[in-house]
Amino acid sequence: MNEFRLIDTFVRAFRPAPAPAGPGDDAAVLRVHGNLVATTDTATDGVHFTRDTFTLPDVGYKALAVNLSDLAAMGATPTYFLCALGLPHGFSPHEVRALARGMAALARHHHVELAGGNVSYAPKLSVTITALGLASHPLLRSGARAGEDIVLSHPLGDAAAFLCGSRHPAACRAQRRPTPQLAWVKRARPYLTAAIDVSDGLIADLGHLCFASRVAADLDVARIPLGPSLAAAPPERALDLALAGGEDYALVATVGRGKFARLSRALARGGMRAYRIGATAAPGRRNAILLDDAPWKGPGGFRHFQDG
Amino acid sequence: MNEFRLIDTFVRAFRPAPAPAGPGDDAAVLRVHGNLVATTDTATDGVHFTRDTFTLPDVGYKALAVNLSDLAAMGATPTYFLCALGLPHGFSPHEVRALARGMAALARHHHVELAGGNVSYAPKLSVTITALGLASHPLLRSGARAGEDIVLSHPLGDAAAFLCGSRHPAACRAQRRPTPQLAWVKRARPYLTAAIDVSDGLIADLGHLCFASRVAADLDVARIPLGPSLAAAPPERALDLALAGGEDYALVATVGRGKFARLSRALARGGMRAYRIGATAAPGRRNAILLDDAPWKGPGGFRHFQDG
Repeated sequence: MNEFRLIDTFVRAFRPAPAPAGPGDDAAVLRVHGNLVATTDTATDGVHFTRDTFTLPDVGYKALAVNLSDLAAMGATPTYFLCALGLPHGFSPHEVRALARGMAALARHHHVELAGGNVSYAPKLSVTITALGLASHPLLRSGARAGEDIVLSHPLGDAAAFLCGSRHPAACRAQRRPTPQLAWVKRARPYLTAAIDVSDGLIADLGHLCFASRVAADLDVARIPLGPSLAAAPPERALDLALAGGEDYALVATVGRGKFARLSRALARGGMRAYRIGATAAPGRRNAILLDDAPWKGPGGFRHFQDG
Repeated sequence: MNEFRLIDTFVRAFRPAPAPAGPGDDAAVLRVHGNLVATTDTATDGVHFTRDTFTLPDVGYKALAVNLSDLAAMGATPTYFLCALGLPHGFSPHEVRALARGMAALARHHHVELAGGNVSYAPKLSVTITALGLASHPLLRSGARAGEDIVLSHPLGDAAAFLCGSRHPAACRAQRRPTPQLAWVKRARPYLTAAIDVSDGLIADLGHLCFASRVAADLDVARIPLGPSLAAAPPERALDLALAGGEDYALVATVGRGKFARLSRALARGGMRAYRIGATAAPGRRNAILLDDAPWKGPGGFRHFQDG
């Protein structure tokens, strides 16, 4: 099996980009007019997933999903993506097809087209995607002001519950098949001032938003929505997973003053909602994020590299 | 050492993209009007380089260079790039800085800016770059017609000679610090009909061009320029390396009929030249590429995955 046949096997799972040049030339050619939004993220076997808890379609799906989630956090509409596959020796065309199948299903759903990519050998299966999108008004982390509502696009903690052993359907879905919040942000965008996706944990990611916007945040613990897989967990444990677990790929966003009701109505028309969990405050105090007026003492968000 | 500090260490080596949002938000935002050209390629320790023959600045330089070479093959001007780093445990900030230094030197030289990226753990050092550029008239593989001159942007074989043990300065430079042919293609573009970069070997890559353009190719063996490191090698061996060695990152291109003299003058004004090595022919015969009227019987180009 050679590199070019593996590429061909992969590409055939997708409706390739029409464009002047899609996969097959030295590079893809895409006509763009406006704000191009670009992000890249890698999924590596043993780091971001394991082969015994993820099927290959899950791996393909999630590798694309986490990139589309970044575009959702920018209020962007995804258009194209590139995929660099690192395949271990002996990885078969059948396996390439399975990986591509999960990725192609998500790509079709969001009308995002494969524009190019690359296949090479790697010691462990690795999928690096670069997703491109368009946004007439990109939603930055730095747009929040004091006195704005903080909202979540969906409950938290299910993805972390999976890593802690839960096989509740919601935990499995959250970890293997997270939903990029593109439909949510499309309706919510006009009412939002800043957003970030919860990949490292709510406290960690909201912290980035607060830092970039130079605001503080006051969260109302009772309002933080917990995923269905946490219903049976001890309350303290459930809260830890929701606040620090990461990989939920919900959006946490701030809402322009006085716009929460309109935001809610716009989302309701699409069968969605926003969970109001607190408000931004003036910066300057010691702890940027307070939970029921107390600093967070639990574990931090997920880190690939530990301190030390 | 945590992920965010490693990212910060990496980013500081570059003049970050100004733009609405460069590194630091969920995604980069870039204003684009026209044909965006996008390519992605990975360099993995033990596959594309080894740590005993490449310094970390070499790794950073080459990971970007091979992507810029793909943009050169499209006649594009590079603008931005994204970088997904896979770092093994214990990779230090000092090492991240060294890697970034080599990459930043090349980026500065070509005025291409770091727009975003990602750092995660990987079993082996891995650098995946996505390079973005602009081309008002992209140069495709499929534009060649029969009866056109075939040219090379520089001699071949030095990069392969390095892999076979040569430590001639030209071999070291070709393998560790290949020059993306951006200056060459900028002058040559008006006279060219198709191009590809020689990454897998002249026979393999010219074969792709011929296939995409539906033409054949007749090469004049005596005219194929051999790299300086091959001067002392047996002639047969030197030719094998030049024709099948790969990783030279020269451009092989076809020239519009009757335009070779003008191409040469345009290149000469920049202190460069085109090596005319043959001509395209009508398609349909058994061997698309002939060398002095005989089919190539030597080894194929480099393959990451062997047949079988």
